[in-house]
Amino acid sequence: MINIGILGLGTVGTGVVELLENNRKVIKQRLGEEVNVKKILVRDLSKKRTPYADGKLTVQADDILDDEQINIVVEVLGGEEPALSYIKKALQNKKHVVTANKEVISKHGKELFELAEKSGVGLYFEASVGGGIPIIRPMKHCLAANRILRISGILNGTTNYILTQMQEKRRNFEDALREAQRLGYAESDPSDDIKGFDAARKLAILSSIAFNTRITPDKVYVEGIENIELEDIKYAGELGYTVKLVASARKVGKSEVEVLVAPTMLSKNHPLSAVRDVYNAILVEGDAVGEVMFFGQGAGKMPTASAVVADIMDAAREGKRRIYCTCYDELKVIDVGSSTSRFYIRLKAKDKPGVLSKISGAFGRNDISLHMVIQKDVKGDVAEIVTVTHQVHFNNLKKAINEIRDLKDVERVINVIRVEEVSSNGVHGDN
Amino acid sequence: MINIGILGLGTVGTGVVELLENNRKVIKQRLGEEVNVKKILVRDLSKKRTPYADGKLTVQADDILDDEQINIVVEVLGGEEPALSYIKKALQNKKHVVTANKEVISKHGKELFELAEKSGVGLYFEASVGGGIPIIRPMKHCLAANRILRISGILNGTTNYILTQMQEKRRNFEDALREAQRLGYAESDPSDDIKGFDAARKLAILSSIAFNTRITPDKVYVEGIENIELEDIKYAGELGYTVKLVASARKVGKSEVEVLVAPTMLSKNHPLSAVRDVYNAILVEGDAVGEVMFFGQGAGKMPTASAVVADIMDAAREGKRRIYCTCYDELKVIDVGSSTSRFYIRLKAKDKPGVLSKISGAFGRNDISLHMVIQKDVKGDVAEIVTVTHQVHFNNLKKAINEIRDLKDVERVINVIRVEEVSSNGVHGDN
Repeated sequence: MINIGILGLGTVGTGVVELLENNRKVIKQRLGEEVNVKKILVRDLSKKRTPYADGKLTVQADDILDDEQINIVVEVLGGEEPALSYIKKALQNKKHVVTANKEVISKHGKELFELAEKSGVGLYFEASVGGGIPIIRPMKHCLAANRILRISGILNGTTNYILTQMQEKRRNFEDALREAQRLGYAESDPSDDIKGFDAARKLAILSSIAFNTRITPDKVYVEGIENIELEDIKYAGELGYTVKLVASARKVGKSEVEVLVAPTMLSKNHPLSAVRDVYNAILVEGDAVGEVMFFGQGAGKMPTASAVVADIMDAAREGKRRIYCTCYDELKVIDVGSSTSRFYIRLKAKDKPGVLSKISGAFGRNDISLHMVIQKDVKGDVAEIVTVTHQVHFNNLKKAINEIRDLKDVERVINVIRVEEVSSNGVHGDN
Repeated sequence: MINIGILGLGTVGTGVVELLENNRKVIKQRLGEEVNVKKILVRDLSKKRTPYADGKLTVQADDILDDEQINIVVEVLGGEEPALSYIKKALQNKKHVVTANKEVISKHGKELFELAEKSGVGLYFEASVGGGIPIIRPMKHCLAANRILRISGILNGTTNYILTQMQEKRRNFEDALREAQRLGYAESDPSDDIKGFDAARKLAILSSIAFNTRITPDKVYVEGIENIELEDIKYAGELGYTVKLVASARKVGKSEVEVLVAPTMLSKNHPLSAVRDVYNAILVEGDAVGEVMFFGQGAGKMPTASAVVADIMDAAREGKRRIYCTCYDELKVIDVGSSTSRFYIRLKAKDKPGVLSKISGAFGRNDISLHMVIQKDVKGDVAEIVTVTHQVHFNNLKKAINEIRDLKDVERVINVIRVEEVSSNGVHGDN
């Protein structure tokens, strides 16, 4: 069993406690041992908390930092102090540290990594950039054979939400900001986000890894989005562009890097231009791999907890256990006939009265409801019929298609193709 | 120094040898020791090879598999045999194995992982799915705290190229296939790709990891794209869809999974619908992280070598050395003034003769050439002018803007925003 201590029980801290509890079984199976939250640092013992925290709260950081049974300290307080001092003490006490703190890592990374190395423990910070999007570990491991030429990304969800609202809803900046605040995407003092400072810290972390050189946030040139007007967004659209707050860094010659955060118009075929709302994306260009992109929710309680808990698992595994086969379940592969989807069907039939009704009848008998039917492209006495169904079972569809094939006025069922939609939020769900 | 042996010197093997040589310095810095290619298995000693392979060739697999100084065996032969037997022997001889072989891993993964665990060595296969796109390690590590609900992806570049050609160039299937063959994207016998078998193997590997259950390719329901006609693509377009060969797997209830490869129409706002040409993308949905997407070149010499060499580095590092700070360079952050970009500028000026020429003069004196100028939105005697520049230095632009601000007929320079284009291949390069 691995004992951990958590510093902070705000949004992310609560997410971490809940995720460890909700996915206790898979985490234990994948890690090979259990993760136990031993103590949690809070400021106020009387505040109402998640029931999973019962009996674990303390107001003394040293209860965690000096506990010899705690192997891993998770820092989710945010802000520079006291987080920095706590992390230092934890590392000095030879505990692995997992943190989501972009401010501490971007400003004090050098000192902290030296401390971790000296103590022979790990310092993990996957959650500090891009929330739950895997980016730090992929850059350090999966792309390690590459010389990185450039990184560019949408690293701040608040500003991306505001720009998306301006573009799609024709809201002006102030209205879009108010909407972001109403939804909890922006703070009451939003300057850290809209002036680009939050993106600059994340870019400092990413470019330090990409170019193997220490880049602190004060070295990043920053322009925010506070001066972007609706008119600019409209012109951009007319010109075929989308305005995004782009954080980018690239190697210049042998010994220089360019590092900036600035509003940028992206052509519609640019991979970052399609990133909407609070989503983040990071494009990395390596000399061998070419361009790879990582996309997902860049913030939020559970996405950030996903990255923190993955780091906890890696810290627990460190030097102890290699990941072998992870197929510990025996799931059954279901017959695809029982799967559901929407389907597009194209067929050729005689262009005469009653044919469409016979075809519709075959669908109806097999419980297939149709979203739309188009009859067109008549050549001689032959019509082409295209339909799209609602969600239906594949088995039912196959039965209907067989009946339709047997209809004497149907020449040929040409094609049957699955159809996927995305729901209104732009990324979730489909069939 | 880590000695490796490579089985096979085809396209990927040559890429691995070249990448290890070209990026020798960064690889050594990041890993902390040198990777030395000791021996390479080939079939024909007389064939002309990369000069980096000189003096290392052998036609005897056992020269590598039985060499006690070789710690890591890299298998890039492809195909089921003799690759499988060689991998087994390497693992039995307690050597780490790195492979790009999707056929062997998808069909014989269980046996090989058990063998690796028994021998206490690692079996790495990042390159077997998605070429250089980080996906195996991110799923095993970064998303380890999640219950995976669904994965869906475009896992075969050949079919995606054909479908993109059909959609964008209105080529029919046969012409698009011939074009793919001419460009080397498709084999002379293309059935493995176009019938969906290649995608099925990759999906078997991904879904085994995602759902912690062994899924072999024969369990995957497969439809290929060989029956898709240009007419279908056209109708799909009219209906607002793009046709893609989608590989998808999802958990159904507690003990079942649905695993299929089939042509699917995706609505234009679906994240996978924008994946063009030979690119691959994998969308993973976890209960905590939500949806994350990984995008990049799914095949090719250097992208695949990028994944293989990353695996070699991880195998070399295994249990030996934690990654601490990797900032071993001291790069200078360049003044953003010397960076270049295209810029959009919007300003308000008096609507009278000579004003535009004065503005253009200020640009010209500072070496700023203009891509386009729009004058519009005249209110009373005021005109709004929008211009987009070619690639220019930011310092020059700032000087020009200052001169323009001082012009007496210019009321206000409202905004200056960077513009990024992507070149015609859809993803590479920009400003």
